[in-house]
Amino acid sequence: SNNNVVNFFGLSSLDRFSHKRTDVQWLKEKLHHPSTTFVLFSQSSPYITWSDEGKCQVCRFHYEQIKFLFEKPEKEEPVTIFLGIGDVVASKTKKTSTHNPTSRSFDSSLDQPAWFAVDAGDVPLEHLQEAQPNAELLSPRNYLALMSVADEEAGVIGQARALLSWHDRYKFCPTCGSQMHIQEAGYKHTCQNKECRSLKGIHNTSYPRVDPVAIMAVIHPDGNQLLLGRKKQFPRGMYSCLAGFMEPGESIEDACRREVYEESAIKVGHVTYHSSQPWPMPSQLMIGCFGYAVSTAITVDTEELEDVRWFERRDVAAALQGGGPGTGEVGSQSSALFLPPRQAIAHQLIKAWVGMTANL
Amino acid sequence: SNNNVVNFFGLSSLDRFSHKRTDVQWLKEKLHHPSTTFVLFSQSSPYITWSDEGKCQVCRFHYEQIKFLFEKPEKEEPVTIFLGIGDVVASKTKKTSTHNPTSRSFDSSLDQPAWFAVDAGDVPLEHLQEAQPNAELLSPRNYLALMSVADEEAGVIGQARALLSWHDRYKFCPTCGSQMHIQEAGYKHTCQNKECRSLKGIHNTSYPRVDPVAIMAVIHPDGNQLLLGRKKQFPRGMYSCLAGFMEPGESIEDACRREVYEESAIKVGHVTYHSSQPWPMPSQLMIGCFGYAVSTAITVDTEELEDVRWFERRDVAAALQGGGPGTGEVGSQSSALFLPPRQAIAHQLIKAWVGMTANL
Ligand SMILES: Nc1ncnc2c1ncn2[C@@H]1O[C@H](COP(=O)(O)O)[C@@H](O)[C@H]1O
Ligand SMILES: Nc1ncnc2c1ncn2[C@@H]1O[C@H](COP(=O)(O)O)[C@@H](O)[C@H]1O
Ligand SMILES: [Mg+2]
Ligand SMILES: [Mg+2]
Ligand SMILES: [Mg+2]
Ligand SMILES: [Mg+2]
Ligand SMILES: [Mg+2]
Ligand SMILES: [Mg+2]
Ligand SMILES: [Zn+2]
Ligand SMILES: [Zn+2]
Repeated sequence: SNNNVVNFFGLSSLDRFSHKRTDVQWLKEKLHHPSTTFVLFSQSSPYITWSDEGKCQVCRFHYEQIKFLFEKPEKEEPVTIFLGIGDVVASKTKKTSTHNPTSRSFDSSLDQPAWFAVDAGDVPLEHLQEAQPNAELLSPRNYLALMSVADEEAGVIGQARALLSWHDRYKFCPTCGSQMHIQEAGYKHTCQNKECRSLKGIHNTSYPRVDPVAIMAVIHPDGNQLLLGRKKQFPRGMYSCLAGFMEPGESIEDACRREVYEESAIKVGHVTYHSSQPWPMPSQLMIGCFGYAVSTAITVDTEELEDVRWFERRDVAAALQGGGPGTGEVGSQSSALFLPPRQAIAHQLIKAWVGMTANL
Repeated sequence: SNNNVVNFFGLSSLDRFSHKRTDVQWLKEKLHHPSTTFVLFSQSSPYITWSDEGKCQVCRFHYEQIKFLFEKPEKEEPVTIFLGIGDVVASKTKKTSTHNPTSRSFDSSLDQPAWFAVDAGDVPLEHLQEAQPNAELLSPRNYLALMSVADEEAGVIGQARALLSWHDRYKFCPTCGSQMHIQEAGYKHTCQNKECRSLKGIHNTSYPRVDPVAIMAVIHPDGNQLLLGRKKQFPRGMYSCLAGFMEPGESIEDACRREVYEESAIKVGHVTYHSSQPWPMPSQLMIGCFGYAVSTAITVDTEELEDVRWFERRDVAAALQGGGPGTGEVGSQSSALFLPPRQAIAHQLIKAWVGMTANL
């Protein structure tokens, strides 16, 4: 019944079941229930195994296997997030988000498996390998490694990573500097200082951050060229869409225009929305748009980018067919253009543009 | 060259000129320049005057008039935000955002007036009235009063309010609890503790919050009814679109589906984007969508809402024509439906739906 674009990290088959976040008794039952699945993280990275075919699988633990993590004084209990209820089937058959929330009125919920994420901190790997001999921590130094997880698991892993990273960096009250105290199954934290102003009324200091970022495929006035840029740190030959953090007090459309102008001096007129993507690095919301350029002369903001260029449609199309760096010379002037992988919304925006008719 | 919808608080004619935020010398010159405009706030509310015709005008000060605010020891200087350069003409002729950023390559910038927002704290009103005899603080208890400002000034006031509120509530480092130190003309703050982890690499702890909220006009499967709800605190008869804060790890479309399901038990299939609106209460980004319902039986989440109902198109259309509460009985069952004012994106979403053909 819907044909919305679903991007990587945006597909989750869990129902977040948020009305249970305050039901301490229910949460406790679920925590100990044998049908409950735990995904474990250290340094904001999940524990995974690699299958024989080289596929990454997130380790799923049961309470009995990890209860030693909870057998600590209350203050040292690991940060634990209730992710939701349902099944996460990592198969290749399910491709689109079929959001089928469970009925609230009747408590079939106790039959549905619950999911929790736990920050295992500096637990020795051997302790986890007693339950899962091949468990390893997905490279915590390289966050791009997260794109290795299966599409069907990516949403849950992204949700977990964003919330665990938030607790990791937001331990003190920004209003008074006191320590925070975690509530609502990981979705809220409140100041422990009874006198704090943040306890009067509702303040965003208590809630997880979600940082909106505008990302845009900017189309040349001739309809046949796309504006792409590269950071110095990108692999050789890689270009991607321009993007930037939204600022307070602007619309999505104006954020697109501002960032494109700042980074390339190109002026954008009309902007259309394409799709969005949660990006758990640590908690961005990528808002993917098309921008219609009304000027063509580029001035690169060399503070942020190494190069920005117009690319011909045929070269972009060839790069979409091509692979990563070093997979051959595609593109004109023997400069081997390559694009971000399919998991990045930039790739999907570029692909959608290539599929559009020219000179619309 | 563009026909994007521009919502209230989303129209600003200033160029944020962000590359100058780190140019301390340039900022200092601009701060003292006679062409520079200052807008002043206390308790996150702007100083304004009311014209004889009852129109709200934001007070514009010049440096000479308010320099006493800056004549303090460095630690006590008021929080000051560089808003951008350009002209803000509060006239009725300019209705759409004509974003015309100034060229960066050449320094005509010194000819363009700069704008700053200053948190005047508890300055006695009399001191400001020496410069502007009719200055008063726009009701700080009722944030809806902000909708009184002129459309052309709303963007600048919203930008200023969001940033000043951020500094007001975010004074301590969430990672270590130390005090923060304001930088980049008000768009960044960094931890004063040299050992703090937040100083290694880029972290969102340094940047202003923007909280994305999904707000949606949900359309009945028959195409002729709209789902609207009311909070207990709403004026009698008022209904609006359902809305909710986005959570980490979800797409805009899934946030729409989740919030609608949580608040009404209605299942939404396809979602389309309409427009966005910065909402400086204190710093939301409202993301306005249409949601196509695939179920019709409502269960109200009475924790959040008092009522949720399907409204017939003709009743909604009548309410759009009508005024506020008590302006007469429109709608069926003699229940006088009325809608949020035009400044709210909910109003614009509802109006856009009424303008759509039924049964699309
Ligand atoms: N929420 C945020 N998280 C990280 N960096 C931010 C954020 N907001 C603004 N920035 C700044 O934005 C720069 C990246 O530029 P851009 O993505 O083009 O806006 C970073 O290097 C930061 O200086
Ligand atoms: N960033 C935020 N700012 C304020 N309230 C939030 C935020 N995130 C979640 N909430 C919660 O969301 C509730 C409002 O519900 P809703 O707008 O439907 O999501 C508030 O009462 C808060 O409990
Ligand atoms: Mg950028
Ligand atoms: Mg930026
Ligand atoms: Mg940028
Ligand atoms: Mg709500
Ligand atoms: Mg909510
Ligand atoms: Mg809600
Ligand atoms: Zn506090
Ligand atoms: Zn710190």
